[in-house]
Amino acid sequence: MDENGGRAKNMKKAVVLLSGGIDSTVCLALAHRDGYELYPISFDYNQRHKRELDSARQIAEYYHCPRHLIITTNMDAIGGSALTGTMEVPEGDIERKDIPPTYVPARNLIFLSYAVGYAEVVGAERIYIGVNALDYAGYPDCRPEFIQRFQATVDYATKATTRDAQRIEIVTPLINLDKAGIIKLGMELKAPLHLTTTCYRGGEKACGRCDACLLRLQGFSRAGFQDPINYVHL
Amino acid sequence: MDENGGRAKNMKKAVVLLSGGIDSTVCLALAHRDGYELYPISFDYNQRHKRELDSARQIAEYYHCPRHLIITTNMDAIGGSALTGTMEVPEGDIERKDIPPTYVPARNLIFLSYAVGYAEVVGAERIYIGVNALDYAGYPDCRPEFIQRFQATVDYATKATTRDAQRIEIVTPLINLDKAGIIKLGMELKAPLHLTTTCYRGGEKACGRCDACLLRLQGFSRAGFQDPINYVHL
Repeated sequence: MDENGGRAKNMKKAVVLLSGGIDSTVCLALAHRDGYELYPISFDYNQRHKRELDSARQIAEYYHCPRHLIITTNMDAIGGSALTGTMEVPEGDIERKDIPPTYVPARNLIFLSYAVGYAEVVGAERIYIGVNALDYAGYPDCRPEFIQRFQATVDYATKATTRDAQRIEIVTPLINLDKAGIIKLGMELKAPLHLTTTCYRGGEKACGRCDACLLRLQGFSRAGFQDPINYVHL
Repeated sequence: MDENGGRAKNMKKAVVLLSGGIDSTVCLALAHRDGYELYPISFDYNQRHKRELDSARQIAEYYHCPRHLIITTNMDAIGGSALTGTMEVPEGDIERKDIPPTYVPARNLIFLSYAVGYAEVVGAERIYIGVNALDYAGYPDCRPEFIQRFQATVDYATKATTRDAQRIEIVTPLINLDKAGIIKLGMELKAPLHLTTTCYRGGEKACGRCDACLLRLQGFSRAGFQDPINYVHL
């Protein structure tokens, strides 16, 4: 192991934003298939539940990642979200096109910014983020226009602008996939979907009722696979 | 006071990145002069010392800010900086043009990203950041090119892109000033420079030897003012 925990000096490295959900886990599986040494980054931001973070840890272990950076932040102090505040968890409204109450202001912007710092320190050439424009049309910072502009910013934000250092490329392999497509891809890649957490409520078993559960179940159904996790209501 | 702590519903609001140093304090003074209700944001990221943060708190109180958001984050876990790690504090090298060892990877990118979320939640139309291109030529994320691209990203990162919401403008009023110019401006605005902390060592009295102290002292000298803080070696 070298000083950054890497096992192979010549292996190219990728930072992967890993929430512990399906999308980020499929991203990790893709980065693994693409031959990268994996440097996942996860966030403990006083989410309503820690189960997602436990999943992220297990998934990072599953892939024997040399380092898993967990950033702790009180970003919930910013306010303004059902995921960190006291608003109701939304139910039964997965077709909405406006910005949902689970939107955390600037969350992907903040997450990606940390990922850039991490990528610079470990010498990663890529940052994988599992945003997709279809299921999350309501979140401004999941859109291709946002990612393109963030890439332009990154090209001027790091040492790579002033030294002969590695350019960091933001990659969004899921951007044009729907949940069913992401699940199919995950199954092909043998991604550990049994370790993922999706439910907004974060119980030992998924609730099967919140929007996140509904989107997941609909995705598995459309993909033609059985969801390997346990549900309360099924 | 409204739900965000604001005292005047019709008063326009500005988020100000407030480190507790001279530059950010002069930014706060400028935003105050420009008629904004002030929403400073500061960061507790396991800096070598907390004195800067104490200064930031005192400065926010000095201006009777309705809210002072302090983000706590283990961004030091990313590694790679003398300000958060175990590298030596640099001395006597204030003319260097390369990237100094006190550079924290992606720090301004991370700080600005939080500021964007905060601005969105409080409804601020501006974010003031005290970057200046002259003294900090070595830091990529202090340059106008970076700020311009970040602005383009912000225009696609928030609710304002999809709703009739407030556009958030990043303003860098110090970008073309040197330290002497910033100090002159601060004196004109009666900014509480006596409350600021600059020294990398963060003792009760400033060391007067580190690069940060040297730049500060040189700035006061060139501006023709006496520095109101106490030094060990003077």
